[in-house]
Amino acid sequence: MEYPSKLIENAVDEIAKLPGIGKKTALRLALHLLKQEKEDVHRLSESLVDLRENTRYCTACFNISDSDTCVICASHKRDNSVICVVEDTRDVMAIENTSQYFGLYHVLGGVIMPIDGIGPSDIKIEQLITRVAESSEGIKEIILALPSTMEGDTTSFYITKKLKDSGVKVTSIARGVPVGSELEYTDEITLGRSIMNRQKQF
Amino acid sequence: MEYPSKLIENAVDEIAKLPGIGKKTALRLALHLLKQEKEDVHRLSESLVDLRENTRYCTACFNISDSDTCVICASHKRDNSVICVVEDTRDVMAIENTSQYFGLYHVLGGVIMPIDGIGPSDIKIEQLITRVAESSEGIKEIILALPSTMEGDTTSFYITKKLKDSGVKVTSIARGVPVGSELEYTDEITLGRSIMNRQKQF
Repeated sequence: MEYPSKLIENAVDEIAKLPGIGKKTALRLALHLLKQEKEDVHRLSESLVDLRENTRYCTACFNISDSDTCVICASHKRDNSVICVVEDTRDVMAIENTSQYFGLYHVLGGVIMPIDGIGPSDIKIEQLITRVAESSEGIKEIILALPSTMEGDTTSFYITKKLKDSGVKVTSIARGVPVGSELEYTDEITLGRSIMNRQKQF
Repeated sequence: MEYPSKLIENAVDEIAKLPGIGKKTALRLALHLLKQEKEDVHRLSESLVDLRENTRYCTACFNISDSDTCVICASHKRDNSVICVVEDTRDVMAIENTSQYFGLYHVLGGVIMPIDGIGPSDIKIEQLITRVAESSEGIKEIILALPSTMEGDTTSFYITKKLKDSGVKVTSIARGVPVGSELEYTDEITLGRSIMNRQKQF
């Protein structure tokens, strides 16, 4: 595509680097910004730099946080004998939204992805092992809540192996047919697993 | 949704102001930016401010331009007796892509939208009238290529009325069944119009 100005070409190129945004959407967003007040564009631009420059991570669980210890780790109401291992902050938010979990978290910041060159040392696995080993809090259970993909399963397997001799119980969230969904529309792998992992009713 | 940090909440709020981007997508984009190099985020942020602060418009056709006169208006190869009236830069790019049009453009920067408070004086209609009236170039035809919506049609009607006594021919791009599409899937209004505006074959 040929752009009428270098400035717009540059902005479109930068916006189109964002995941899920192509050149056409980027152009639409750029033209939208051109029509906005200057202050609004400055505010957007500053919020992005501010986010990247000043975001801190909890030193215990590596969740995004405004202080050294995140709100969840600092809370006295949480059960610190259970740690739920997740891929990123969005998963913490999703689990918090259920109001069904009262333990702590450990945010890996990714999963093992050999194709993208992400190995075990690129995510916070070592820190999890150390956290369990040095635990004076008496960690009793590690719940793996990683994505149900090949990469997520690989990561779960790796962590399970690493924690085998730690004496801590390692569990994984249940996989099965989603609540409210019809059996005939469930894919065969999920349905197959849900039969294999059937639960006792009484 | 409760965010783990003020910085991320702020960035998500700002990103979610963009058209077509909701809070979930905004969060995904914000977390993506957190993983990028600082320079990359700075580059994105600067390109947006730069776009908004320094973009100029062609003084003749009001298309986005790096200089006072845009590449199209400055070209000696273009037929300056024809002006195609469009809503915004994207339409210029789309028409240029066809390689079927060699005249000049006039970019209105919007269409009349009473609901959003956009009247004829908020877009470049007056400038079009003046351009035609003061034309020493001998403008012979104005082609209206505005969107086929109520707002676009209103704007076309308004411009046609304003140019009635100017002695310039005013035309509108053809509406009809798109090339390569099946009659049965074409909506009835388009199909109806395509019959009304049928063209002579010989």
